[in-house]
Amino acid sequence: MNPASLTIRELQSALAKGELSAREIARQTLSNIEQFNPAINAWTHVTQDRMFNEADRIDRLRKEDQPLPPLAAVTYAVKNLFDVAGHATLAGASLFSDRQAAKRDGWAVNQLAESGALLSGMLNMDAYAYGFTTENSHYGATKNPRDLLRIAGGSSGGSAAAVAAGLVNFSLGTDTNGSIRVPASLCGIFGLKPTFGRLSRSGSHPFVASLDHIGPFARSIDDLAVVYDTLQGRDPQDSFQAEKTLNPVHHRLEHGLEGLRCGVLGGYFQTWCSGEARAAVAAAAMALNAQDEVVLAEAELARTAAFVITAAEGGNAYLPALRTMPERFEPLSRERLLAGAMIPSAWYVQAQRFRHHFRQQVLPLFEQFDVLIAPATPCSATPIGQETMRINNTDLPIRASMGMLTQPISFLGLPVTTVPLQTPGGLPIGLQLIAAPFKEEACLRAAWALEKMGIAQAAPAPLGSPL
Amino acid sequence: MNPASLTIRELQSALAKGELSAREIARQTLSNIEQFNPAINAWTHVTQDRMFNEADRIDRLRKEDQPLPPLAAVTYAVKNLFDVAGHATLAGASLFSDRQAAKRDGWAVNQLAESGALLSGMLNMDAYAYGFTTENSHYGATKNPRDLLRIAGGSSGGSAAAVAAGLVNFSLGTDTNGSIRVPASLCGIFGLKPTFGRLSRSGSHPFVASLDHIGPFARSIDDLAVVYDTLQGRDPQDSFQAEKTLNPVHHRLEHGLEGLRCGVLGGYFQTWCSGEARAAVAAAAMALNAQDEVVLAEAELARTAAFVITAAEGGNAYLPALRTMPERFEPLSRERLLAGAMIPSAWYVQAQRFRHHFRQQVLPLFEQFDVLIAPATPCSATPIGQETMRINNTDLPIRASMGMLTQPISFLGLPVTTVPLQTPGGLPIGLQLIAAPFKEEACLRAAWALEKMGIAQAAPAPLGSPL
Repeated sequence: MNPASLTIRELQSALAKGELSAREIARQTLSNIEQFNPAINAWTHVTQDRMFNEADRIDRLRKEDQPLPPLAAVTYAVKNLFDVAGHATLAGASLFSDRQAAKRDGWAVNQLAESGALLSGMLNMDAYAYGFTTENSHYGATKNPRDLLRIAGGSSGGSAAAVAAGLVNFSLGTDTNGSIRVPASLCGIFGLKPTFGRLSRSGSHPFVASLDHIGPFARSIDDLAVVYDTLQGRDPQDSFQAEKTLNPVHHRLEHGLEGLRCGVLGGYFQTWCSGEARAAVAAAAMALNAQDEVVLAEAELARTAAFVITAAEGGNAYLPALRTMPERFEPLSRERLLAGAMIPSAWYVQAQRFRHHFRQQVLPLFEQFDVLIAPATPCSATPIGQETMRINNTDLPIRASMGMLTQPISFLGLPVTTVPLQTPGGLPIGLQLIAAPFKEEACLRAAWALEKMGIAQAAPAPLGSPL
Repeated sequence: MNPASLTIRELQSALAKGELSAREIARQTLSNIEQFNPAINAWTHVTQDRMFNEADRIDRLRKEDQPLPPLAAVTYAVKNLFDVAGHATLAGASLFSDRQAAKRDGWAVNQLAESGALLSGMLNMDAYAYGFTTENSHYGATKNPRDLLRIAGGSSGGSAAAVAAGLVNFSLGTDTNGSIRVPASLCGIFGLKPTFGRLSRSGSHPFVASLDHIGPFARSIDDLAVVYDTLQGRDPQDSFQAEKTLNPVHHRLEHGLEGLRCGVLGGYFQTWCSGEARAAVAAAAMALNAQDEVVLAEAELARTAAFVITAAEGGNAYLPALRTMPERFEPLSRERLLAGAMIPSAWYVQAQRFRHHFRQQVLPLFEQFDVLIAPATPCSATPIGQETMRINNTDLPIRASMGMLTQPISFLGLPVTTVPLQTPGGLPIGLQLIAAPFKEEACLRAAWALEKMGIAQAAPAPLGSPL
């Protein structure tokens, strides 16, 4: 039995009935990772001792007949930019391989540890979280469990692959321009990018302060919502966190589509994608009774502005290291970061001003709609090493363009649930279900409804992984 | 009788007793402006018709024995960057002389109009609000009413001169890096720069979105507080406005120093000023029982960061016009704005990051102190046309350095009341009384106490003006 193939509810039931112990769950999980990770290259480090310790704590509680915490013995792993006590936080970069070990867990990891979840290790990503493919020059490419010759997407590619392969129950990633939604789409699982400012980012390695989000991946909406609820809470250390932080949604999922008005994002979001992506949107739109199409007139400009902000803030963050040890940088990112640091400030200021303007234009749409549907990626996973993809009769660079449909949405800070659909070609593709700020509940309920209808479903991984 | 020489309370009493009519007040004020403005060059436009209309409305209310609004027949004028319905908003720049007339009053002007105040016109300033001297190449220099050969300070120089000359009861200015506090200091009157985000800026011509404040000038703290209370209120149009907007203070002034712990800013703020300024601080410190000295270790860096943010956001705002009509720019500002637009974005981002850091360093000081004292300017008013001043054995450019003691404080967004003291040389110099965010009450009460003790006092203008 593979404990990670159970849902969180099933796992808790098995634990309650004594069919499984936490140590057995940890042991089996670590064994699966040892066996299958070499094929997908998702883990960069396995925290075996910690996982057993966390498991033993749960088993002690069970032995003493004490109440179990909400994520007792649920297994997970985190993108290697989250601080884990005793380990150096890599952020996908060998630049950081000799940095001091983190003194304590980051805020999110601490929340999960306190909820009884078992940490299995840290996961591969694009260096600095700057990319959409997880083809990492230092730590190798992460392979897509659906097809090992294809990319897992990025930058949280390891986080998506670990869950898609059925090796843990859930994982944590981050999303600056699409880094949760893109790999969730390409690996065929569920992902949540919450509202900007909803979840604390303390103890996660920053990339772009004004765009970074953290969020979970899972193979069902029920699991995703339980984990999301655990991650909520006010962290006085995170000055970017909004006041509105606590809004548990798991117990509300079963309201499903009740009262939700859904629409489809047209224009840019229908132009810059493949027929497969359009068909997936159409299937979801029919199921969600989304008859109206909405156009964000300035979506392309929003993407440009997000690029400028990303390059400028990313460039600023790495400038001291670029000055002193350029040779230690990921070659695919070094020049982008340098160029970003030198962007004229007038462009950066303009991009932030446009962000405000664009938000004012878009937010009123949510008076008419609760959920807007768009593809998460222009197409399904491309082969590892391939440089370009052909979309809308245009050759686009994959590393930069796989996130072209996610960028305008994170730029607005809106919450998005990514849901996986199957394409006729056999590969999955994800859709974005987008809601108004701090209305995670709306997009999670719509996703739950799509899952119940069998429209959205985390596909089983191919042979060679435990699912 | 000069109605503007009365305090607001005296004026209201005279109005209630029928000793003055609103029309008589308007007539006398306009006549004084006509007679004395040529000497000081504070008004760039006089709104005679509007002033009479506003006065007649008050007189109708009086005739009908209706209750009078709180600023009934109180006279004022505004820096020419506030929108006034029917007039082009100049922002001190001939660049804007042919722009369309404003369709409606700005938010602050509207608040004052609704409170019964009588608008006399618009006031001179440094072009674009970029400067500390109000030596305006398009509209001429504003002269200091205390000494017509000296600068009034800037950028709200006209606002300070109009009030110091006794021509109106109060005025409005703006402060990005010191533009209320510097001219209040040099002209010897009271000024309030509220907390960043306290007062709506809608309908005022922006300079640096992340640093601009609006605020009033007056010749007594009682008047200043009444006007400040009128300016408070939530404006849904102003996205920079904080939630905490309403906190009337006028009725609290008489609590004076009750429970206020005062300290002196040392280090940078005592190094970069003249002996006169230091003596003024010492006098106030004794009166306020401020025995402890506090050092803001990174004040100089804060000033640098404020310069970077100002240049970058100012450059961004004017870049389109700089591209198409550079010849229409104020020569003293054109190159600064162009250079600002081209500052590397990494510097701008760093400056905003430093701002956050500096705030975290400084805010805990307000657990020990309610009010911190510092000079508002390094010295008293310098002669018009003079380029440099000698401070701390260093020749400093006046246009840039007159605000060197105000910049680090507005960078923090803290509320500041500027209070005028007399120097032995006969010219006034202002002090900053600085409080914690949204604690305007603390610095206004300390200022009120200093005024009651006779330490701070708006000095009479010299011969030639009606005071």
